[in-house]
Amino acid sequence: MLHLQAATSPRWLAQVDAHLDQILIDHAHCEKKAAGTALNLIFHYVEDRELCREMTEIVQEELEHFHLVLDLLERRGIQFRRIKPSQYGRKLNDLVRKQEPERAVDRLLVAGLIEARSCERFHTLAAHIEDAELAEFYRSLFESEARHHTVYTRLAGHFATEKEVNRRLQELYEAEATIIASGETQPRMHS
Amino acid sequence: MLHLQAATSPRWLAQVDAHLDQILIDHAHCEKKAAGTALNLIFHYVEDRELCREMTEIVQEELEHFHLVLDLLERRGIQFRRIKPSQYGRKLNDLVRKQEPERAVDRLLVAGLIEARSCERFHTLAAHIEDAELAEFYRSLFESEARHHTVYTRLAGHFATEKEVNRRLQELYEAEATIIASGETQPRMHS
Repeated sequence: MLHLQAATSPRWLAQVDAHLDQILIDHAHCEKKAAGTALNLIFHYVEDRELCREMTEIVQEELEHFHLVLDLLERRGIQFRRIKPSQYGRKLNDLVRKQEPERAVDRLLVAGLIEARSCERFHTLAAHIEDAELAEFYRSLFESEARHHTVYTRLAGHFATEKEVNRRLQELYEAEATIIASGETQPRMHS
Repeated sequence: MLHLQAATSPRWLAQVDAHLDQILIDHAHCEKKAAGTALNLIFHYVEDRELCREMTEIVQEELEHFHLVLDLLERRGIQFRRIKPSQYGRKLNDLVRKQEPERAVDRLLVAGLIEARSCERFHTLAAHIEDAELAEFYRSLFESEARHHTVYTRLAGHFATEKEVNRRLQELYEAEATIIASGETQPRMHS
């Protein structure tokens, strides 16, 4: 899906079955973090008008999703709280090159990869979960993650040639597959 | 206005007349920063549901205003660019106490004070500027700044008693009046 190099393993689905509450809480945090990522990109590349426009839309959608997840937690009597984040985002962000314009390319591609993986996980969840409301919820979020992935990847083209973007994207896809396959003990959206 | 202790001086209006372009560019940056402040508050006080709801609305409105100002710059052929920010926000943020929950109270009150001052400046601009489109623009933004001020001040009450909030607000109002009266050489929205 979306060119990801590794599909979600049954190991993660076992975490979902055993610790759904934690996955849902983490999901809320992920939406909030995604809004933060998009706003940070506005701050760093404020002179790129198209980027600012697209990132504004993403901030708004991610915050909307954040509240949708909070509402869902509330309806289910799950207390929203701070939890230790997964290492997934940090590991990917560690791969971002330090010099501009490579830094911009990598930040956008990494953000896009996280959207792609979220998209794949939402799709997997929607098919796996028996709870009809939850399955429908993940189906409804699925599409926007795929769209965000496309926006991020396209914007990377503002900072490098198409060939450079594709080459780097391929490298990052491979790294992402290794990171997600290594798994994490704590049950999280990207564990 | 909104209990501010010092009205804008004619010195600032002279800066507006001489360097309107810079004031407008700085205004765009201010809207972007205001969105950042509100999103940071979500990150820091994520367990306060009402705060998250109100801050989400403010993020969305500030980003909307950011784009309105960018559109205005574009229509007027003014190149949007990075400019050195004024010291106003930093000086106010330096007053924020380090320990929670005092830190939360101060962050909210300072954010609210900046909204109050922006409100006063927009009002002053709307009355001062001869350009009808611009005057109308500032009139249209005026109300939301006043509302944001009220939201921030009310939310401070989640972290301290009404009496404590009012006492601290009074102190910060006095500090703000001193900071704004001292002025800055660079023409900015809060110079």
